[in-house]
Amino acid sequence: MLRASYGGSTQSANEWLTGRTGMFSQRIERLTGSLIREILALTQREGVISFAGGLPAMEAMPELNLAALPQQLRQYGTTEGEPSLRERIAADLTRIGRTCAADQVLVTAGSQQGIDLVSKLFIDPGTPVMLESPSYLAAIQPFHLFGARFLPLRLFPDGIDPSELAEEIRRQRPSFVYLIPTFQNPSGYCYSESVRAEIARVLDSEGVPLVEDEPYRELRYGAADHVPISGRLKSSSWIYLGSLSKTGMPGIRIGYAAASPDLYPLLVRLKQGTDLHSNRPGQWWADRFLRSPDYPEHLERLRARYRARRDAMAAALDRHFRDLAQWEVPAGGLFFWIQLNRPVDTRELLRKTLEQDVAFMPGEPFFPGSDQPRGFLRLNFSHAGDEAIERGIRILAQVARSAGC
Amino acid sequence: MLRASYGGSTQSANEWLTGRTGMFSQRIERLTGSLIREILALTQREGVISFAGGLPAMEAMPELNLAALPQQLRQYGTTEGEPSLRERIAADLTRIGRTCAADQVLVTAGSQQGIDLVSKLFIDPGTPVMLESPSYLAAIQPFHLFGARFLPLRLFPDGIDPSELAEEIRRQRPSFVYLIPTFQNPSGYCYSESVRAEIARVLDSEGVPLVEDEPYRELRYGAADHVPISGRLKSSSWIYLGSLSKTGMPGIRIGYAAASPDLYPLLVRLKQGTDLHSNRPGQWWADRFLRSPDYPEHLERLRARYRARRDAMAAALDRHFRDLAQWEVPAGGLFFWIQLNRPVDTRELLRKTLEQDVAFMPGEPFFPGSDQPRGFLRLNFSHAGDEAIERGIRILAQVARSAGC
Repeated sequence: MLRASYGGSTQSANEWLTGRTGMFSQRIERLTGSLIREILALTQREGVISFAGGLPAMEAMPELNLAALPQQLRQYGTTEGEPSLRERIAADLTRIGRTCAADQVLVTAGSQQGIDLVSKLFIDPGTPVMLESPSYLAAIQPFHLFGARFLPLRLFPDGIDPSELAEEIRRQRPSFVYLIPTFQNPSGYCYSESVRAEIARVLDSEGVPLVEDEPYRELRYGAADHVPISGRLKSSSWIYLGSLSKTGMPGIRIGYAAASPDLYPLLVRLKQGTDLHSNRPGQWWADRFLRSPDYPEHLERLRARYRARRDAMAAALDRHFRDLAQWEVPAGGLFFWIQLNRPVDTRELLRKTLEQDVAFMPGEPFFPGSDQPRGFLRLNFSHAGDEAIERGIRILAQVARSAGC
Repeated sequence: MLRASYGGSTQSANEWLTGRTGMFSQRIERLTGSLIREILALTQREGVISFAGGLPAMEAMPELNLAALPQQLRQYGTTEGEPSLRERIAADLTRIGRTCAADQVLVTAGSQQGIDLVSKLFIDPGTPVMLESPSYLAAIQPFHLFGARFLPLRLFPDGIDPSELAEEIRRQRPSFVYLIPTFQNPSGYCYSESVRAEIARVLDSEGVPLVEDEPYRELRYGAADHVPISGRLKSSSWIYLGSLSKTGMPGIRIGYAAASPDLYPLLVRLKQGTDLHSNRPGQWWADRFLRSPDYPEHLERLRARYRARRDAMAAALDRHFRDLAQWEVPAGGLFFWIQLNRPVDTRELLRKTLEQDVAFMPGEPFFPGSDQPRGFLRLNFSHAGDEAIERGIRILAQVARSAGC
């Protein structure tokens, strides 16, 4: 099986720990390796066409120029982050409709750290957590590690169903709702304005906190100017997670968590014990990047490039997958979400495509809870070039076809 | 009281959460602000002489030159860290007697992240954790947050008592033992060779994992060449935490956790969900720094400078505190640990010294568990200059004297 090709590092922790239970915390029984990162490791083999990770294109990144870095940044910094960067992020959020002050912004080690802090804030073993199905794999895993009991919501191209949300909240009382409304990962779906408005009303009326995760917000390839759901809340608590990894660069590990005033001080204290503060050279670069006069044009160039990649993949899918699968062309983000006509185990499919040096993300682990539908796969279009996209999609289709799809 | 001078941000989370319990995880009831960071914030006021934090001296830091940073570091990196840095750290550890391979080294966001990962690995509510009393405040807090039940061991100038360790392990079966054997924080004590050897024998014989935290190892001001306790273990599991913050610079947030092969893969998976990987510019700088031909001389210069500061503080203490307190002159590290002759509440003392613009760390929070002896204070000697040391110690003594010490 797939596991074999990963070698020893991919046993689940439970298997590996046989006989050692009791030495570790109970959460270690829920610790699994990250399929994403293990596949990424595999795909770094020379010659592999990878549609697996969400790697931004190197050639589309701004230059990382740290030559003018002030020497005082060598010293310890504040947990909250550099004041100038926090001001800039607050101004950007306010501009898009998520009104917020600088003292509500916590700089984090990528938005992944925001997810860790959210887990620490809310989740005990058995805590009910409501989220989209499918949802972001690297949020599902930490939530699961901390012991979340998942309450999945069906996801449609215009978002979750607000009536179902209201009904499920009343029935199950989740500690928070985790949503990725804009160019969702893995589906690429974008919530409509009316669904956003309706969700905000439900959350306010039920008094349930919202964790809104928007790493892809700026990667839009058509008209899209969606006000964050958290920006529409009148009374409910909220945390808004953002990232510099997709528009800037991931290697510096800078993201942020903005939060309502009731939650913010708790996130700061949780971060204190986690890493004291985020690295200051990365924060300095991020501040200069966001304030650069070239920033709006950089975003336009990035969108143009990724739009072209998306269109190249859409065309390749049309050529090779028309009779094999169904999909929507995403209006933003980095992924196509494909439903094969036959529900094959896509982890098994991956084993076969890897033999031909093509990688993608199997869909199963994106579904929270034990019911994991088969036949879905996630294809990233930002990393591979146009020729690689055509060749990779062709091989993928051949393998899917010979697997009986 | 002291709390009042901190303003709203220093309420304990419990007070602040009155009426909101149930919304958050149970660990939030155990979340307190970091006294260290709150005092640091206060001491950034113009004109304050601070003996509070463990801030390295800016003028003793190497230059942070990132002009030649390779552009490929903009992309996502591996969770484990940059291969060249891991190799260098492994070689350094092997040289000091903690034999280890590069694939046992995990680069972390300062050694603080190592403590977070250790907490995740071992601690459930009620998990027994054995540690020195006093111990490092920013380890006590995350351990407490995760629910540790503390089993404190009395600390003497040559270390904990190995017989007491053996007896307490047999009686209480801790999940792990957390020690800072070299220039301990806050005491400055350094474990003797024979105590180290004896502790390793006890841990091997009882099969209890050791977490050994050594951020101050290189800051030695006399002959000291102590083999880590973990390097003497024959069978027990171990984690060794190190930091670039004291010898290099803290602003880049680079530390490391080395671990025995049974624990290492679990730490890597825990870090995946925490922040994916550590920032790559900081890792690149750290690698160049550790490999620089000037590195040994940099350490010598740093030691000479801090030794002079230590001696200046020792002289000032001799002048002003002889009849007020007792202390040992530390052979390394960054702190004097002072026991006043009368057990006054040093948090109250701090309130008074702050009125005269002098700050230090109260001793009480360094004691794990509910029994917190009074009359101890920690004085950092790396940050303030010689004149400030003389003036600050004089003021401190005056305040202590008028408080009845």
